[in-house]
Amino acid sequence: MPHFDLPPEQLRNYRPELAEPADFDEFWSTTLAAADAHDLHVTATPVDTGLTLVDTFDVRFPGYGGSPVSAWLHLPARRVGPLPAVVEYVGYGGGRGLAHERILYAAAGYAHLIMDTRGQGSSWSVGDTPDPAADSGGPAHPGFMTRGILDPHTYYYRRVFTDAVRAVRAVRVLDAVDPARVVVTGASQGGGISLAVAGLVDDLAAVMTDVPFLCDFPRATTLVDTLPYAEVARYLKAHRDHVDPVYRTLGYVDGVSHARRATAPALFSVALMDDVCPPSTVYAAYNCYAGVKEMREYPFNNHEGGQGFHDREKLTFLRRVVPAPPAG
Amino acid sequence: MPHFDLPPEQLRNYRPELAEPADFDEFWSTTLAAADAHDLHVTATPVDTGLTLVDTFDVRFPGYGGSPVSAWLHLPARRVGPLPAVVEYVGYGGGRGLAHERILYAAAGYAHLIMDTRGQGSSWSVGDTPDPAADSGGPAHPGFMTRGILDPHTYYYRRVFTDAVRAVRAVRVLDAVDPARVVVTGASQGGGISLAVAGLVDDLAAVMTDVPFLCDFPRATTLVDTLPYAEVARYLKAHRDHVDPVYRTLGYVDGVSHARRATAPALFSVALMDDVCPPSTVYAAYNCYAGVKEMREYPFNNHEGGQGFHDREKLTFLRRVVPAPPAG
Amino acid sequence: MPHFDLPPEQLRNYRPELAEPADFDEFWSTTLAAADAHDLHVTATPVDTGLTLVDTFDVRFPGYGGSPVSAWLHLPARRVGPLPAVVEYVGYGGGRGLAHERILYAAAGYAHLIMDTRGQGSSWSVGDTPDPAADSGGPAHPGFMTRGILDPHTYYYRRVFTDAVRAVRAVRVLDAVDPARVVVTGASQGGGISLAVAGLVDDLAAVMTDVPFLCDFPRATTLVDTLPYAEVARYLKAHRDHVDPVYRTLGYVDGVSHARRATAPALFSVALMDDVCPPSTVYAAYNCYAGVKEMREYPFNNHEGGQGFHDREKLTFLRRVVPAPPAG
Amino acid sequence: MPHFDLPPEQLRNYRPELAEPADFDEFWSTTLAAADAHDLHVTATPVDTGLTLVDTFDVRFPGYGGSPVSAWLHLPARRVGPLPAVVEYVGYGGGRGLAHERILYAAAGYAHLIMDTRGQGSSWSVGDTPDPAADSGGPAHPGFMTRGILDPHTYYYRRVFTDAVRAVRAVRVLDAVDPARVVVTGASQGGGISLAVAGLVDDLAAVMTDVPFLCDFPRATTLVDTLPYAEVARYLKAHRDHVDPVYRTLGYVDGVSHARRATAPALFSVALMDDVCPPSTVYAAYNCYAGVKEMREYPFNNHEGGQGFHDREKLTFLRRVVPAPPAG
Amino acid sequence: MPHFDLPPEQLRNYRPELAEPADFDEFWSTTLAAADAHDLHVTATPVDTGLTLVDTFDVRFPGYGGSPVSAWLHLPARRVGPLPAVVEYVGYGGGRGLAHERILYAAAGYAHLIMDTRGQGSSWSVGDTPDPAADSGGPAHPGFMTRGILDPHTYYYRRVFTDAVRAVRAVRVLDAVDPARVVVTGASQGGGISLAVAGLVDDLAAVMTDVPFLCDFPRATTLVDTLPYAEVARYLKAHRDHVDPVYRTLGYVDGVSHARRATAPALFSVALMDDVCPPSTVYAAYNCYAGVKEMREYPFNNHEGGQGFHDREKLTFLRRVVPAPPAG
Amino acid sequence: MPHFDLPPEQLRNYRPELAEPADFDEFWSTTLAAADAHDLHVTATPVDTGLTLVDTFDVRFPGYGGSPVSAWLHLPARRVGPLPAVVEYVGYGGGRGLAHERILYAAAGYAHLIMDTRGQGSSWSVGDTPDPAADSGGPAHPGFMTRGILDPHTYYYRRVFTDAVRAVRAVRVLDAVDPARVVVTGASQGGGISLAVAGLVDDLAAVMTDVPFLCDFPRATTLVDTLPYAEVARYLKAHRDHVDPVYRTLGYVDGVSHARRATAPALFSVALMDDVCPPSTVYAAYNCYAGVKEMREYPFNNHEGGQGFHDREKLTFLRRVVPAPPAG
Repeated sequence: MPHFDLPPEQLRNYRPELAEPADFDEFWSTTLAAADAHDLHVTATPVDTGLTLVDTFDVRFPGYGGSPVSAWLHLPARRVGPLPAVVEYVGYGGGRGLAHERILYAAAGYAHLIMDTRGQGSSWSVGDTPDPAADSGGPAHPGFMTRGILDPHTYYYRRVFTDAVRAVRAVRVLDAVDPARVVVTGASQGGGISLAVAGLVDDLAAVMTDVPFLCDFPRATTLVDTLPYAEVARYLKAHRDHVDPVYRTLGYVDGVSHARRATAPALFSVALMDDVCPPSTVYAAYNCYAGVKEMREYPFNNHEGGQGFHDREKLTFLRRVVPAPPAG
Repeated sequence: MPHFDLPPEQLRNYRPELAEPADFDEFWSTTLAAADAHDLHVTATPVDTGLTLVDTFDVRFPGYGGSPVSAWLHLPARRVGPLPAVVEYVGYGGGRGLAHERILYAAAGYAHLIMDTRGQGSSWSVGDTPDPAADSGGPAHPGFMTRGILDPHTYYYRRVFTDAVRAVRAVRVLDAVDPARVVVTGASQGGGISLAVAGLVDDLAAVMTDVPFLCDFPRATTLVDTLPYAEVARYLKAHRDHVDPVYRTLGYVDGVSHARRATAPALFSVALMDDVCPPSTVYAAYNCYAGVKEMREYPFNNHEGGQGFHDREKLTFLRRVVPAPPAG
Repeated sequence: MPHFDLPPEQLRNYRPELAEPADFDEFWSTTLAAADAHDLHVTATPVDTGLTLVDTFDVRFPGYGGSPVSAWLHLPARRVGPLPAVVEYVGYGGGRGLAHERILYAAAGYAHLIMDTRGQGSSWSVGDTPDPAADSGGPAHPGFMTRGILDPHTYYYRRVFTDAVRAVRAVRVLDAVDPARVVVTGASQGGGISLAVAGLVDDLAAVMTDVPFLCDFPRATTLVDTLPYAEVARYLKAHRDHVDPVYRTLGYVDGVSHARRATAPALFSVALMDDVCPPSTVYAAYNCYAGVKEMREYPFNNHEGGQGFHDREKLTFLRRVVPAPPAG
Repeated sequence: MPHFDLPPEQLRNYRPELAEPADFDEFWSTTLAAADAHDLHVTATPVDTGLTLVDTFDVRFPGYGGSPVSAWLHLPARRVGPLPAVVEYVGYGGGRGLAHERILYAAAGYAHLIMDTRGQGSSWSVGDTPDPAADSGGPAHPGFMTRGILDPHTYYYRRVFTDAVRAVRAVRVLDAVDPARVVVTGASQGGGISLAVAGLVDDLAAVMTDVPFLCDFPRATTLVDTLPYAEVARYLKAHRDHVDPVYRTLGYVDGVSHARRATAPALFSVALMDDVCPPSTVYAAYNCYAGVKEMREYPFNNHEGGQGFHDREKLTFLRRVVPAPPAG
Repeated sequence: MPHFDLPPEQLRNYRPELAEPADFDEFWSTTLAAADAHDLHVTATPVDTGLTLVDTFDVRFPGYGGSPVSAWLHLPARRVGPLPAVVEYVGYGGGRGLAHERILYAAAGYAHLIMDTRGQGSSWSVGDTPDPAADSGGPAHPGFMTRGILDPHTYYYRRVFTDAVRAVRAVRVLDAVDPARVVVTGASQGGGISLAVAGLVDDLAAVMTDVPFLCDFPRATTLVDTLPYAEVARYLKAHRDHVDPVYRTLGYVDGVSHARRATAPALFSVALMDDVCPPSTVYAAYNCYAGVKEMREYPFNNHEGGQGFHDREKLTFLRRVVPAPPAG
Repeated sequence: MPHFDLPPEQLRNYRPELAEPADFDEFWSTTLAAADAHDLHVTATPVDTGLTLVDTFDVRFPGYGGSPVSAWLHLPARRVGPLPAVVEYVGYGGGRGLAHERILYAAAGYAHLIMDTRGQGSSWSVGDTPDPAADSGGPAHPGFMTRGILDPHTYYYRRVFTDAVRAVRAVRVLDAVDPARVVVTGASQGGGISLAVAGLVDDLAAVMTDVPFLCDFPRATTLVDTLPYAEVARYLKAHRDHVDPVYRTLGYVDGVSHARRATAPALFSVALMDDVCPPSTVYAAYNCYAGVKEMREYPFNNHEGGQGFHDREKLTFLRRVVPAPPAG
């Protein structure tokens, strides 16, 4: 059944009763404070992509535990004054890709930073940021979803969300960027990370989150058997005695809880035939989102969502909230 | 078996004995002459894509039978003098897409024309060019491969290849373009069309053809059961009495025969696990190609081929054969 | 879940609130009037099938736009006086087949006309009727469901339904046929066409429609992802901006609306595990059907429905409503 | 790979070195003699199918062990003198079907007997003949291929082939039939049974065997993993210690050995993409067939073979070897 | 959807209204009385498994119709006095296996009898007990589910359940066994048989039934399309006219009805993602079970259920209800 | 094609020309020396499994980098003097399982140690040994095959093979074990590890390796697209520029090279339909194995291999090379 989830009118009102760990906010403030104890030393090395309209830099900044995180920075070759910036997080399995691959926001006049996701980057796009924490080697189901999942302190996404917050801090110290006009974005895992950053950083100019992953875990993990949510279920299929600690840990990561704390203006998208990040889980985050928000629905799409049609929506939204200066 | 085709060393020497229709050249010269009898009236209307570094135009030119064919033209927003141009043809099922979707060559300083494929453009990317010839309604298997296939004069790809030659002619009459430096490119169906244009137009600056489709039909249609080659087999599964006329018609379209007539410098790519356009059929065209040529092999890829890695190769190749002027 | 649709008791009462275009009746009367402006010149050429008990003729009559439509006519070799006639429409993708393939109704003593579906006939059975209207070449998803779908006037099924009405008119002018005793029938697409003809022609002797396709599009296109309904969804997956015009066009074709206008006695069949033409969409047409009606339910069948078991039901039903004369 | 078997030119010369059990002929002559010890009492009860051109009878005759085997007999309703007869065996899993379902040969003027396959008839078509031998309950993989397979005397196909020979004897005692003009036919399992009968009965008028099953077991069971050949492999996957007795038993059934003994004129068909009864195994039987023979090749078909196209060939072949009298 | 069945809270209260044949109890008492008319002659032959801690015997006892049924008996090599015994029935398709394969209960100090399932034992594990009743050869869909299904007296599971009751009687006559402490167990089909035995034998010490099969047929056969339940649906897909007799026969076998009559203490297990024996059908039996009962739920498992985790539960349960003596 | 690999007679002689890194032996001697610098402190804690015939201990010993590796030790509850020992390594994805799950070798009178595979143990069986090396977090495709693969020093299997050698050393220091009679065994990954240990430890009593994984990587990774070999291909599908370093690293792990150095008597098994560890790669190791060796072939099995049938072979082989003492 292509519309396998709730009927549209129920989706638009779906709001799960999701318990939150009592120390949710303390957990994250402690975590970020520890990361911020590391100096924010950012390097940006120019690379030759063969493109003449866009300048690209290989960026490195210290993330969780101070270990280096890679990113690409794209800027219009001709630019005047500090630019509004878009910080982008990547979908599950991928990395920041090759230096010339994603230049849309720069072509629209923005500074654009694309962050690697630690450990990922060996499937649909490449990356080269390791996840050298000792915790990364704990017994886990193949993939990243269950690494260190028995304790929120060792859980993989604790490190990733911390990197993501640090990426916002890193982009703000760049000369080319206006620190008051930073937008975060991403699709799928990148959308889930965007929501977390929106909840953890309080002065973003906007959030654009597409078909976000990592939302409403109790529903997602029993509603679909597609990867990557299914990694959790497959882990629990083996470790029948780990159900409680696993869901406890996921409570610190759930995008619904982060959305409740986020206040920047937000543009969401959802696909009604999405069996990877099912629409009810996206609406769960949307309906709980604490800031001004807009939704775009794609009724006949699976997880690819709106693609170019939605990029058009995002360029329009961006132009509205953080207009880029005219081309230099 | 991922390496299901010939072993690499045999691939590199594979050269099929492919019979050609006796009137192959006459068929195509007559066809193109008929198309060229229609005035080459080209229109280019600016569109607002939201991008500031690239100017985009909605182009229309008369193709086969004089009926209008749509294309996007992308130019660097700041440009000086006529530019070398890249004419791109699209993969099977897709269309030219949305106006902002493919700006890589413009970002590298080139004029870039992306042509719709008539009738296509309702699956992975959109298009809006109809195929209004009466022949297009003949009984056929779903898809485009068997439309009008019982006679080379009514066959679908006769019309498409004619459009593609006309696109080269159209780009050459644009002010922004240097007509002596036109390169054709495309992947899969777009690669097959590129080979045909390379055989039918004798003064191209270069050809870049990736994992080309429409090559060595007798082998392709019995070696793989994947779409779109399988459309031919499925048609013949029903019409058991049409085998001879079908293969006769395909003889006019086969990229191996067009390659034998092509002389522009060429860059090919092939993927050794490609079960859509199997590597032997790509090497069949490559080994028969009459001009100077280079091949890039991707041993662990299916039909996606080299993707960003190969775009890098293509930008380098382009810079070598038709360097773009420095950014304005 | 094999019984994936509504539970049986809900199916039997399911009646969708389906909006109809205001000009539905005018659209069709204008369309049919235009077709009827073409002379009804019917030809019937004897063919040698190798069968001695049945005489078969290759029939051609002018359909939509006056273009020729092919059909087979089967008659008992020994016959006395004009016979009641069965006009049959074919399932999606197929054609009228070979001359000897479907002789059941003739073996039961009836005149039997099997009409080609224009453009189809290259998959499970063969056909040779083209769809030469210029509209047939519009950009479309592979298959026939989305050809010309942006406007009801260019839509493929406008032409097919017109051919089907003309087939009834054609069979009535044959000497061998009693024009007062014409029954229409078909399965799947053929069942959907039968319903449309039942709504558009008001003096049929009966209708026998099996697991009909083309009914309750809003439900069908979001309930199943199987072909051919899924062609609509796949088209809209690409053309995210065409949802409204597509559903407007389908409103003129929907079997539910045609059923509301049909009055001939009808025999329906439905399969409760049918994931191609889901049972709720069949019951939608049945429950709205305006004439006397009977349903046969096949609880453990998918789209194959009742097959030989239901042919038995149909022969019995036919014998009741239009008894054939004793064999000559 | 659609052409997964040997290349066409090798197929046409493929002739396996297949060992035969030393007592092959004795085994079968003893088996048939035991069956023939049962009186050949044949009953034929008229049934009302609703068809007026064909008379149908429910036939029962004593098969292996004297237990009753069901069949349909179809005759032209108007007939003059004894007719040539076609005895048909059914494909795997099916039964003789419903009484009105297969009337092609009767419509062409022949007597036609369709035999049930004992125990089968609960999947694609129905049957009602049990296999009441005690041997039928031996441990076996689901399906019929491994029932009693540890000993040729208890093997399922010993009983089936015996029934099939008895069906020829039964049809010959019917008044309506000319015993000198009996043809056997069948597709897949029915084709394999036809070959066996052709080897076991020496005065048939002709054999028409389509894409025959049960040929060249050592190759078939390791070349394809499709049912029903795969039942043997799945049995041996469990019973790793039964390889030798299984292949010994199959040696008595193999169509290649039966073909070596057959002398009636034969029409074969083969499909080059057939992954159920792979083309090499069909050619194995064809190339070893001892009588005059013809082959029809269907290069783009899987196990469906030539279907209506081949029925046309068969009607022509029949007309040549046993012309039916003109319709009465 | 992994949790495709009812939500957990509804599962735990699901209790189908399942009609029972009026003569259910009489049917079974008559059946068992007939079997018990055969002398209970049990043989036990030692076999060398290569294991030194466990003694294994090849057991044979007369089952339904007096025909011999095979089983393995495992005993601790060092043992003192009569032991409590576990009688185990096997999952669908399998047999008792090889002599050394299942020694867990013996290693825990119990006598352990594993019974072959007649006719089965040629897929995931081997067996060698035939089902020589003449009824076993009736027309049926491949597999065992529809053998003789048109009449409860000829139905396959009538014979199997009778064997299973006789196995309990057989183990009780062995010297090594304490007849007052016999427990029955099994998973899937083995679980369904256990439930039937629990209803048919009134003095068992306990029942341990895991993810039982053969429960709530009306729901199971329309809720899942997986084997083996789907064998019933596939049979009815062909035999559209056999729905009523099939469900009537299944009424004598349904585990829900047997559970209503069972009184021994019971341990059940259920897997919430089980699409072979769906959780509602397991809860149907559990909620109707007449004795003291406990359930273990495995929320992330399919039909494999609790595996080693549940074996641990079963060893604990066994130790509680029938403690084994200390090792000798 | 079930027999998709080389024909049996070619398999039995297949011997790849596999280049070895020049410093292969030095690499491993340095690696093991570093591990052996850690004290071999082995702990063994009794656990209550509920089994009375077998005593089980939770063992921990320092592996690669000195980090703790878990294992189960099973001993016959009654035992006399030091026992011959079987050290078992586990298949890909699994862990040592639960304490009561694998007691076959203990039931046959042997000491039996089952080692966890670091990081694994969250799919088909559970484990709890982490892989805390910083290298374990490098960018990798999901799974373990490409962790740290760009350098042999950081590669995952360097750590695993070191653990495995240390397990042999650990078992030898146990009182219950006779250090002169240690056998290693395992299936699939466990078989590949066994081969490596056989090459790295020179005084083993025997090796029993079943359908070993990790052999002849250049062939395996292009011959099958099944997991886990396909993890390498999927990594290279993304990282098109890493082909050379990846194959260089795999050269240190390849079971063919380890087999060339192994001298203990060996029992191999191979399955001819194995598409996970294809038979040619198993024979590659077998044919290069330097010691006395025997092979068991399972012609109709996929990767499950001989299962219980082969356990029987292994018990017999063990009894021959290291007879267990009679039960105490």
